Amino acid sequence: MEKINIKRLAEELNLSTSTISRALQDSYQIGPETKQRVVEMAKKLNYVPNPHASSLGSRKSNTIAVVIPEVFDSYFAQAINGIETVAQEKGYHVLIYLTHERLEQEQAILRAFQGGRVDGVIMSVSAETTAATHMQELRDQNVPIVFFDRTPDEVDTACVTTNDLESSYLATKHLLERRCTTVLLLAISRDLSIMRQRIEGYRRALTEAGLPFTEDNILDCTYDDEVNYELLTKFLKARPYTDGIVATVEKLTTSVYQACRNLGLRIPSDVKVVSFSNSRSASILNPSLTTITQPAFDSGKAAAVLLFKGLKSKKGVPLTEKLVLPSELIVRDSTAG
Amino acid sequence: MEKINIKRLAEELNLSTSTISRALQDSYQIGPETKQRVVEMAKKLNYVPNPHASSLGSRKSNTIAVVIPEVFDSYFAQAINGIETVAQEKGYHVLIYLTHERLEQEQAILRAFQGGRVDGVIMSVSAETTAATHMQELRDQNVPIVFFDRTPDEVDTACVTTNDLESSYLATKHLLERRCTTVLLLAISRDLSIMRQRIEGYRRALTEAGLPFTEDNILDCTYDDEVNYELLTKFLKARPYTDGIVATVEKLTTSVYQACRNLGLRIPSDVKVVSFSNSRSASILNPSLTTITQPAFDSGKAAAVLLFKGLKSKKGVPLTEKLVLPSELIVRDSTAG
Repeated sequence: MEKINIKRLAEELNLSTSTISRALQDSYQIGPETKQRVVEMAKKLNYVPNPHASSLGSRKSNTIAVVIPEVFDSYFAQAINGIETVAQEKGYHVLIYLTHERLEQEQAILRAFQGGRVDGVIMSVSAETTAATHMQELRDQNVPIVFFDRTPDEVDTACVTTNDLESSYLATKHLLERRCTTVLLLAISRDLSIMRQRIEGYRRALTEAGLPFTEDNILDCTYDDEVNYELLTKFLKARPYTDGIVATVEKLTTSVYQACRNLGLRIPSDVKVVSFSNSRSASILNPSLTTITQPAFDSGKAAAVLLFKGLKSKKGVPLTEKLVLPSELIVRDSTAG
Repeated sequence: MEKINIKRLAEELNLSTSTISRALQDSYQIGPETKQRVVEMAKKLNYVPNPHASSLGSRKSNTIAVVIPEVFDSYFAQAINGIETVAQEKGYHVLIYLTHERLEQEQAILRAFQGGRVDGVIMSVSAETTAATHMQELRDQNVPIVFFDRTPDEVDTACVTTNDLESSYLATKHLLERRCTTVLLLAISRDLSIMRQRIEGYRRALTEAGLPFTEDNILDCTYDDEVNYELLTKFLKARPYTDGIVATVEKLTTSVYQACRNLGLRIPSDVKVVSFSNSRSASILNPSLTTITQPAFDSGKAAAVLLFKGLKSKKGVPLTEKLVLPSELIVRDSTAG
């Protein structure tokens, strides 16, 4: 026997499935004439409502989206696992969208969500994201959004971050305590608020130690590993007195190690290195890497818990809770001595 | 001025957007009366067709799905980038779904695709995937699927793989040439065809060298790093004469290095190590790691090219092309001497 579902009714009556669904739920949005047509056809074809299809009526997709810049970073990989732990418990699918650090891509993705494809969004903004209109539009449609790690400045919504300023302060202070006198900060995407925080932490540690804070000691890196390697090599050649490096993102580690090696600079005796990194391989590098390790898994989990709280609450009440989870300085051989 | 689009026309006429779209395309599926209503309303509201919206008429989602076990592996991260390069050129969205190595999760994801959510699927099966019914069902609905890296045995469809047997053979032979006499193979998920290939390559190299192939020298690892560390420590303690290790997946590297270090085994003088790995950090490990490096980016790209070929061709013609791209043995310090 052919199965009669809402789709079949919609085809039979040349109406949309959402019209059928709403008519069967006696929604005020559907006129009485249409309602009658739908109910009669449902009776005629012996339509039995599917108990699991209640999502249709409530227009739920049982899907949440995770929008992130990339998956190369251990932080994002671990955060996704944290998010999925919570989502699976709730019976939700998780879709992952990559922006590849491009605002245009991020805008297109969020625009696609306006059709109701997902119930909620967990995101970390792209490096290019300065405007926030596309996020505001989504919120205006009552799609809850929770940010993690990289948050936009303009949208007042829920977010889960780490103590970026303190972490960077700690990393820099650690190098100064190990007698570094000229500390290079490797920055990337200064428009991001987390990067501004990390620069500020670096500045405070220097100032506190009575050392000058100068743009000369900040190197703006890119998302291309080869380019970063070249930039670093050039920088270290021009400033051979550099004796400490704070790398503010994980992906810079390999370029730093390779540039130092090829210039004959020994880590840690010539240059000491700290990197923001969640990579498991930090402990088996040559030398093992001192890291600022972020609570990636827990951040993902916390963001998902916040989002599901938003999904349960009344529509129109925007999420605004802000959580800050602490990162950890793990001292290894790259800053020894 | 308000923008008049198909959605607006659908609302105005209480019809589905696909009905509107087909009516405007003069489809035989729509009756003459409805067609006239649609055309009149389009004229009245001054509707201008959007040249980029042709996807509506052909019921396309302009979305492809990438279904993979995890994102922790550099291989998958690089493959995704290869896929997205092609998809962006074609104006397609890419959704990433993670199975976390679970068949049940994979089945649920593929079932969700049957509603037309995506136009095509690029996938690498989970460790638990032995049955292929869920993939067959999707193919029966004319949703093209291309597999990469991990392919199922039963479904005769397009796939992009690497020369796993030869790569493993080369890795083992390399260790034997460096005078290893007892080579441990670290396996994971033996049900996967790529793993069987890698074991077979290992067997051939041993046999060719006149050495015994024994189950005693194959250690079945898990997806839990801590468990793997324990298993390895126990194994190496019990068999201290082990002088070579072939790790068949990237994630095993850290456990191998940590276990050797904590047992006081020096790499490469006591134990030589080769790992299948695409990680950029291979060159900065202590010692730098000899790897079998897979053509990850190119595999993703090739899989996407095959899929779009399938999307362009007539429905009902299943994709069956099989591509094999070669991996590369990159010799570094972990097998020196």
